[in-house]
Amino acid sequence: MACERNQDVASFVCNGKKIVGVALNYMCAVKARNVPVPTVPLVFLKPTTSYLTEGHPILLPRVFSKVAYEVELGVVIGKRCKNVPKTDAMKYVGGYCLALDLTAQCNLGVARSSGGPWTLGKGFDTSTPVSRFIPYDDVDDPHTLPLWLRVNGELKQNGCTGDLIFKIPDIISYVSKYMTLEPYDLILTGTPHGSEPFKAGDIIECGMGDLAKIKFNVQNE
Amino acid sequence: MACERNQDVASFVCNGKKIVGVALNYMCAVKARNVPVPTVPLVFLKPTTSYLTEGHPILLPRVFSKVAYEVELGVVIGKRCKNVPKTDAMKYVGGYCLALDLTAQCNLGVARSSGGPWTLGKGFDTSTPVSRFIPYDDVDDPHTLPLWLRVNGELKQNGCTGDLIFKIPDIISYVSKYMTLEPYDLILTGTPHGSEPFKAGDIIECGMGDLAKIKFNVQNE
Ligand SMILES: [Mg+2]
Ligand SMILES: [Mg+2]
Ligand SMILES: [Mg+2]
Repeated sequence: MACERNQDVASFVCNGKKIVGVALNYMCAVKARNVPVPTVPLVFLKPTTSYLTEGHPILLPRVFSKVAYEVELGVVIGKRCKNVPKTDAMKYVGGYCLALDLTAQCNLGVARSSGGPWTLGKGFDTSTPVSRFIPYDDVDDPHTLPLWLRVNGELKQNGCTGDLIFKIPDIISYVSKYMTLEPYDLILTGTPHGSEPFKAGDIIECGMGDLAKIKFNVQNE
Repeated sequence: MACERNQDVASFVCNGKKIVGVALNYMCAVKARNVPVPTVPLVFLKPTTSYLTEGHPILLPRVFSKVAYEVELGVVIGKRCKNVPKTDAMKYVGGYCLALDLTAQCNLGVARSSGGPWTLGKGFDTSTPVSRFIPYDDVDDPHTLPLWLRVNGELKQNGCTGDLIFKIPDIISYVSKYMTLEPYDLILTGTPHGSEPFKAGDIIECGMGDLAKIKFNVQNE
C-alpha cells in the first residue's frame, strides 16, 4: 500500500489507554466564562473507563449535582509519537470521532478554586460518549467541521472546529513534548460556547457535519 | 482453587490502562507543606506511558526545571469494581508494587495556583518508575510497610504506610464511587515527608521493607 498512514485504530474504545482533553479551546467559550485566554493548551486526562457508546445511557453519578454536556471533535492517534513538530503532527492522526466531554461542573468548580486535580469531575463512568470511528481519509479538513448539540430537540451548542484556539497540530505537538502518544489514544479538542448542565430524562443529540450523529438518554445512577 | 482472589495481574505495566494517584496522603507531608488536611482523597490520573522499569533511566523533560521524587506504595487492582464498600475493598486488590510518583513541582505549582489540571506535571514519560509485581499473599499487612528513599546514598525519605491518612480501603471505596477500577489499574497511595527535587546524574534508590528495592539513574532528556 502506498499510504503509510495507520487508520486501523477503529477499536479505540476497547484498545485505547488514554484520553487527553483540552479545556477552554474555543474563543467564544473563553469569553463567555470571562477567564484569561490560554497561552498553551490546558491539558487534562480522562480514563478509558469513561467511554460510552450508543445504545447505553449516560448515568449521572449520585455524587454530583451539576453535570454539563460539551460537544467536541475527537482525534484518534494512529502512530506512536513523542516530541512531534507541528508540521509533522497530522501524520500521526489515524482518524476522528464525535465525542461528548461530560463535565461535573460542581466538582470542577471546587477543584479549580482550591487548586486540586480535575480527575473526578472529568473522569467518571459514562463521561465520554463517542461516535463510531471516522477514518482520516473520510475528512477533507478537520478544521472546518460544524458541531452542534440539542437537548430534547432544542439547539444548545452550535460551533465550528475552525474556531479552535489550538488546532490539532498545536495540540499533538504540545502534548507530545510531555508524554508519548500511542495508537488508539483519543484527544478531545475542546467545546464551543453553550455548555450547560443537563438532567435525568433528557435526550442529548449531537452531530459533526455529515460525518457523525449520536444520541444518548440520560439516567440517574 | 479455593481462593478466588485474582493475583494474576503481574503484567500491570504492559496491560494497565490507568494510574490513579492520591496526593497529600501522609500527615507529615501535609504539615511540612502547611496546607489543609484533605477531608477526602485528592485523586489525580497519570497515563500508563509514564511507566518505567529498572534498567532504564529516568529522563528529566526539557520543559521542566524542578522534578521531585516521591516514594510510594502502589496497589494493583485484581478485579473490576465500582461503588465498593470499604469493608469489601481489599477483595479487589491483586497485589502491590513499590513506585515513584515523580512530580514536576515547577508545573504543579503553576497548575495549583491557577486552578489548572495536574496532568502534565504528573504525567510525563518516565514519571512512574515501578518495581516488580508483589502478589497479595506475599504481604501480611500493607499498612505497616517501611518506605525509604536515598539519593546518591543519602537518606531523603523514611516513612511507613501505617501513617497513610486514607488507607487502601478508603481510597478504593472513594475512587470507585466515580470510576470503575479494572484489573491491572495501579493506585499510588501517596508519599511521606521529604520529597525534594533531583537532577541529572543522581542515582535514586528506594525500598519497601524486604519486599522490594529499586534503583534508577537520572538523565536529562
Ligand atoms: Mg471539554
Ligand atoms: Mg488531572
Ligand atoms: Mg505522589
